[in-house]
Amino acid sequence: MASASFTLSQAILSRSTNHRHRLPPSAAPTISIPSFSGLKSASNHFLCTIPRRQTPNLTHLPAIRASAAVETVEKTSDVQLVEKSVNTIRFLAIDAVEKANSGHPGLPMGCAPMGHVLYDEVMRYNPKNPYWFNRDRFVLSAGHGCMLQYALLHLAGYDSVKEEDLKSFRQWGSKTPGHPENFETPGIEVTTGPLGQGIANAVGLALAEKHLAARYNKPDCEIVDHYTYAILGDGCQMEGIANEACSLAGHWGLGKLIAFYDDNHISIDGNTEIAFSESVETRFEALGWHVIWVKNGNTGYDEIRAAIKEAKAVKDRPTLIKVTTTIGFGSPNKANSYSVHGSALGAKEVEATRKNLGWPHEPFHVPEDVKKHWSRHTPDGAALEADWNAKFEDYEKKYPEKAAELKSIIEGKLPTSWETALPIYTPESPADATRNLSQQNLNALAMVLPGLLGGSADLASSNMTLLKMFGNFQKDTPEERNVRFGVREHGMGAICNGIACHSPGLIPYCATFFVFTDYMRAAIRISALSETGVIYVMTHDSIGLGEDGPTHQPIEHLASFRAMPNILMLRPADGTETAGAYKVAVLNRKRPSILALSRQKLPQLPGTSIEGVEKGGYVISDNSSGNNPDVILIGTGSELEIAAKAADELRKDGKAVRVVSLVSWELFDEQSSDYKESVLPAAVTARVSIEAGSTFGWERIVGSKGKAIGVDGFGASAPAGKLYKEFGITAEAVVAAAKELC
Amino acid sequence: MASASFTLSQAILSRSTNHRHRLPPSAAPTISIPSFSGLKSASNHFLCTIPRRQTPNLTHLPAIRASAAVETVEKTSDVQLVEKSVNTIRFLAIDAVEKANSGHPGLPMGCAPMGHVLYDEVMRYNPKNPYWFNRDRFVLSAGHGCMLQYALLHLAGYDSVKEEDLKSFRQWGSKTPGHPENFETPGIEVTTGPLGQGIANAVGLALAEKHLAARYNKPDCEIVDHYTYAILGDGCQMEGIANEACSLAGHWGLGKLIAFYDDNHISIDGNTEIAFSESVETRFEALGWHVIWVKNGNTGYDEIRAAIKEAKAVKDRPTLIKVTTTIGFGSPNKANSYSVHGSALGAKEVEATRKNLGWPHEPFHVPEDVKKHWSRHTPDGAALEADWNAKFEDYEKKYPEKAAELKSIIEGKLPTSWETALPIYTPESPADATRNLSQQNLNALAMVLPGLLGGSADLASSNMTLLKMFGNFQKDTPEERNVRFGVREHGMGAICNGIACHSPGLIPYCATFFVFTDYMRAAIRISALSETGVIYVMTHDSIGLGEDGPTHQPIEHLASFRAMPNILMLRPADGTETAGAYKVAVLNRKRPSILALSRQKLPQLPGTSIEGVEKGGYVISDNSSGNNPDVILIGTGSELEIAAKAADELRKDGKAVRVVSLVSWELFDEQSSDYKESVLPAAVTARVSIEAGSTFGWERIVGSKGKAIGVDGFGASAPAGKLYKEFGITAEAVVAAAKELC
Repeated sequence: MASASFTLSQAILSRSTNHRHRLPPSAAPTISIPSFSGLKSASNHFLCTIPRRQTPNLTHLPAIRASAAVETVEKTSDVQLVEKSVNTIRFLAIDAVEKANSGHPGLPMGCAPMGHVLYDEVMRYNPKNPYWFNRDRFVLSAGHGCMLQYALLHLAGYDSVKEEDLKSFRQWGSKTPGHPENFETPGIEVTTGPLGQGIANAVGLALAEKHLAARYNKPDCEIVDHYTYAILGDGCQMEGIANEACSLAGHWGLGKLIAFYDDNHISIDGNTEIAFSESVETRFEALGWHVIWVKNGNTGYDEIRAAIKEAKAVKDRPTLIKVTTTIGFGSPNKANSYSVHGSALGAKEVEATRKNLGWPHEPFHVPEDVKKHWSRHTPDGAALEADWNAKFEDYEKKYPEKAAELKSIIEGKLPTSWETALPIYTPESPADATRNLSQQNLNALAMVLPGLLGGSADLASSNMTLLKMFGNFQKDTPEERNVRFGVREHGMGAICNGIACHSPGLIPYCATFFVFTDYMRAAIRISALSETGVIYVMTHDSIGLGEDGPTHQPIEHLASFRAMPNILMLRPADGTETAGAYKVAVLNRKRPSILALSRQKLPQLPGTSIEGVEKGGYVISDNSSGNNPDVILIGTGSELEIAAKAADELRKDGKAVRVVSLVSWELFDEQSSDYKESVLPAAVTARVSIEAGSTFGWERIVGSKGKAIGVDGFGASAPAGKLYKEFGITAEAVVAAAKELC
Repeated sequence: MASASFTLSQAILSRSTNHRHRLPPSAAPTISIPSFSGLKSASNHFLCTIPRRQTPNLTHLPAIRASAAVETVEKTSDVQLVEKSVNTIRFLAIDAVEKANSGHPGLPMGCAPMGHVLYDEVMRYNPKNPYWFNRDRFVLSAGHGCMLQYALLHLAGYDSVKEEDLKSFRQWGSKTPGHPENFETPGIEVTTGPLGQGIANAVGLALAEKHLAARYNKPDCEIVDHYTYAILGDGCQMEGIANEACSLAGHWGLGKLIAFYDDNHISIDGNTEIAFSESVETRFEALGWHVIWVKNGNTGYDEIRAAIKEAKAVKDRPTLIKVTTTIGFGSPNKANSYSVHGSALGAKEVEATRKNLGWPHEPFHVPEDVKKHWSRHTPDGAALEADWNAKFEDYEKKYPEKAAELKSIIEGKLPTSWETALPIYTPESPADATRNLSQQNLNALAMVLPGLLGGSADLASSNMTLLKMFGNFQKDTPEERNVRFGVREHGMGAICNGIACHSPGLIPYCATFFVFTDYMRAAIRISALSETGVIYVMTHDSIGLGEDGPTHQPIEHLASFRAMPNILMLRPADGTETAGAYKVAVLNRKRPSILALSRQKLPQLPGTSIEGVEKGGYVISDNSSGNNPDVILIGTGSELEIAAKAADELRKDGKAVRVVSLVSWELFDEQSSDYKESVLPAAVTARVSIEAGSTFGWERIVGSKGKAIGVDGFGASAPAGKLYKEFGITAEAVVAAAKELC
């Protein structure tokens, strides 16, 4: 059936899993399907061509074959088989941790029942295409318990977790790392481990579903229709980010988000009563969630099933199912203690647990009846996807424009010539703050990029991030594209990671003052690690913000992100460079971009170019010849203007001066040696940099003999012009430094 | 009365306010009282000498003179005068923002009534000694509304905020910066502005009070006895850090913490209903707080008073007083709108507001009757302090040991020869992880430093931070010194800032995995900015943590903190260096220290020394002469061992090799040029560094011709030894790099 649209749903099957600096060459993936590769060049695109053929009418579709994965939750008939399946999960986790002599067996042993019910009875997925668009999403926010998820993926038939993968848990080059990593293991939706991130990612996934459903579903065709499930533990519950994200989930009424709270009373430091005595249920009710308590999470399968059924019936609110479990369930001497949280049980206790749970099998054994029971998910999953593909063909026929747009979001394919929408600036364009220029770019892009959506952490009118042609994404207007995150930077970043992980064509952006990246740094790092192309719009990027003072003035932030792997730190100097920064950010779908933007007005500079920005560093003016200037002045962002002014002065004195914009160190570093030599010739050691931030790291650019002008202490509260003068971020300082060098 | 103990309470009157890189030389403070200067050298200590003299018996003390600042809240008789005082506060804020043409008038206009009641009727303080130990603490968590606090300090008679200071609001060198800064303005307890930090600081202040009261109060003498008040707004409420800290406050039963929630329904993006529809009251009840709602915060003085009275009566729980106010109250056209949040009203609206509130006065005018009314706080405050001093003399007589200990906490004076408690290690001491060596140091120090207390964010047994001789600080055991923060890194950091700001002799430490400094970076930055000497014990400091994988492996973190102003980033290599790091951390009471510590075992290295650590960088071995080695190998922490091994290899080949430990770049940078030249002679450009982290910034040390060995991508999940090999962090790599250079 419908091979073409089957192809569509597979479009992102083979996201590259070859993470830089990660795997030795021998471990590189060998998948041969064309890869979704960040849209850097047309040749890398997977072009979906849907042949024109008769598709079955939606109303005549055969009944869905997947008997277990049904909308209403029904009890699996064979209780003993369920127990056996649950113990299989437990022992796969126990055995893998034991073999690695490292890991967290406690959570999988306690959460195996809810894991079983979810993956075997409730969730709709296709194990042979982990990226099928309309799958239910699952997030293990308590990522340390990843053996639960690996065991479930293994039983469900995912090719990413074979027996040998379980046996190489936590080993070099394996698909089963110590915490779940979306870029390593197909079937893992998001990268978790740092606690609290996962539940916030889940909020992002559920937001994406609600948004896309509102935009693309039709009364006769719910083409977007899935649930998002999460398991979070006590640790996640304590993290502030979880409260931020869950407050938003309640506010937005994300009714298809169902989170299981593994209430096991144990964290690393012991019983949670030593630090966590709040009423989680009451807090979640306060946040606008529906709350259910499953008192027996260890064996209460029917309770778990009933809770999920109830949760699905509540459509206007997310649901928290508090499931009281015993950490390390089944271990006679370690259950219900912190000792089972994060260490292997040890051979003796493994043996005792085998006896206690009546498990006579060898390590890593999956009993035949369990194997057989789970084996239906492969055909059932394929059927689910095939049915959806047929549905999509029908949808495409009826709503071709909507279908094309949705397809581009599913595939992550940018529209042809989208970049022509970028505003064009000339040196004659009026001076403006790059935050304002950023808004012009964002608004222009929103018209051509259907997947662009986002917002600010309560600074929309300062960050200039409102999309003027759209309303607010809210509970009752989820089709809109301005997301109001409130003052919740950390949650905002993690929610954007979730949005980006939902569909490769969703391009989330989010914004706050640059200094407040400190609040969301853990989420930004997960963007970088998990290869989500979130665009971080960070305004008020230096002491140039003025009176708000040192608490609001970034100093070390540029350096701190330049040191972070797999991220693009961009600091454009004017309109043209801002457009260039957006071009780069949109094209880089597998690494996040941070745009540092000014509060203050900046002139449009002669010599800046989009092509220059794409190279990270380039010459904007030069009166030398033979690639041998007397001195090179290097600036970024708001200080490029100062470098240019200083060059004018020095040239009056007869100096041959080159001015370089170093808008992105990472992009510049990726250029050829020849190109880099053409911009910063090794022989020219007379180099002066200027940037209103820490000079830390600038030795890499100016060399041992050059001079870096910057701000290495905290800022101060005063008007911006005064601060620039007092801190010596001036053309005079550049001229003086240059004169000392040449 | 009691001049000696008056001196005691003044011991920290003149904390240095000369913030580095902040004020021009001309603006340096001229206070001549000996300053408390971080205990760097004995000559800088303010030595408190209490003469032996007759002190009044506590039971015969005269009644406290302060009629207004009484324990029970009583209504000020003249309602009109109160209104006038409240309007004075409003217009001082309006006028200062107008003159600066920058700032946030909305909050002060709305919160003036609660501000008035607090500072004029409720709080106990001495305006002429802002550092009187037993004062009530006040925190404006919504720091942007700082003109509220400046106006109150001005009316209350604090010398730090004179009329000219109000007139120089947000100007260069003023005492009235754009957000409250403890290091600029005596009377400001903590540095706020980044939302949510302040309420967490307040939790720390209240923790400190409860802890010290439990340790030092006697049935016949409550020598520690004050309240902590805070005002937080909608923005603070949305931040995750606030929920983290408030969950702990409820857990700990901080009954003397009273927080006012300025419920004005407006944030920068407009009405809070667009992003914040949770029930704050219910959430706080869930967190274990007592909650009161003052429905009329604009004019309901009696309601506010009654709420405070009720809050004080609830002794086992903190109280949240939700005060519904109108932002910008009194402005006829801008009240209750976001436009009054963060901009000057504009001349026309100021005029309209003057008319509306019946305020005929010139800008910055304080009516005589208002002035007179507030003037009593100077004598009353002095009396409060004098009475407390007398009480302390009595306490000292009865409980000399306790008094001496408390006095050292109040003064921040370290015990003589405290550093002799540091453990001594030799090259023969057993190899161990620096996290374990850290615990030995912490436990040794806890015996000699009465103000040392702290804990971990649920990783005590991994961070090795438990003080074995003490129990847990809990609701019913507040005298204990192990603080269990739960998985709340951000709240933990900010709470420690609050503890440090409470008394200069309190030395809070806190711990998590080094990578999770990302969760608490905003609090760490406030430590650095606000000059609190918090000790951050950060273990699992590299890929050396092994199997937990890249989500848990710091890469860019060392670089990111080396770029941060006013912080010490220390990475000790063995036991001796760990002891040195603690020595430095304890001595530096005005800048925070981060100790990056290994999970893995490390040998005790020949040549390491505490004195070396104090200099930041030093030679641990050298077979060259004449300060002219063939090559210099530079390592930190766990890689110093590798550098030493590589040196052995190279020396076998006849090379003259120097090995340098660069344990703290900041301390090394502060050494004399001669010293630095003696360690890293400019002429020797053959330099190889090795550190299992980002190489970003290392060019500063190895120069343009040197080589930096490190990890510039993300880590991976595998055993540590495998990772070191795969990532090339090996002696072989150092030897190869060195051979290329010499």
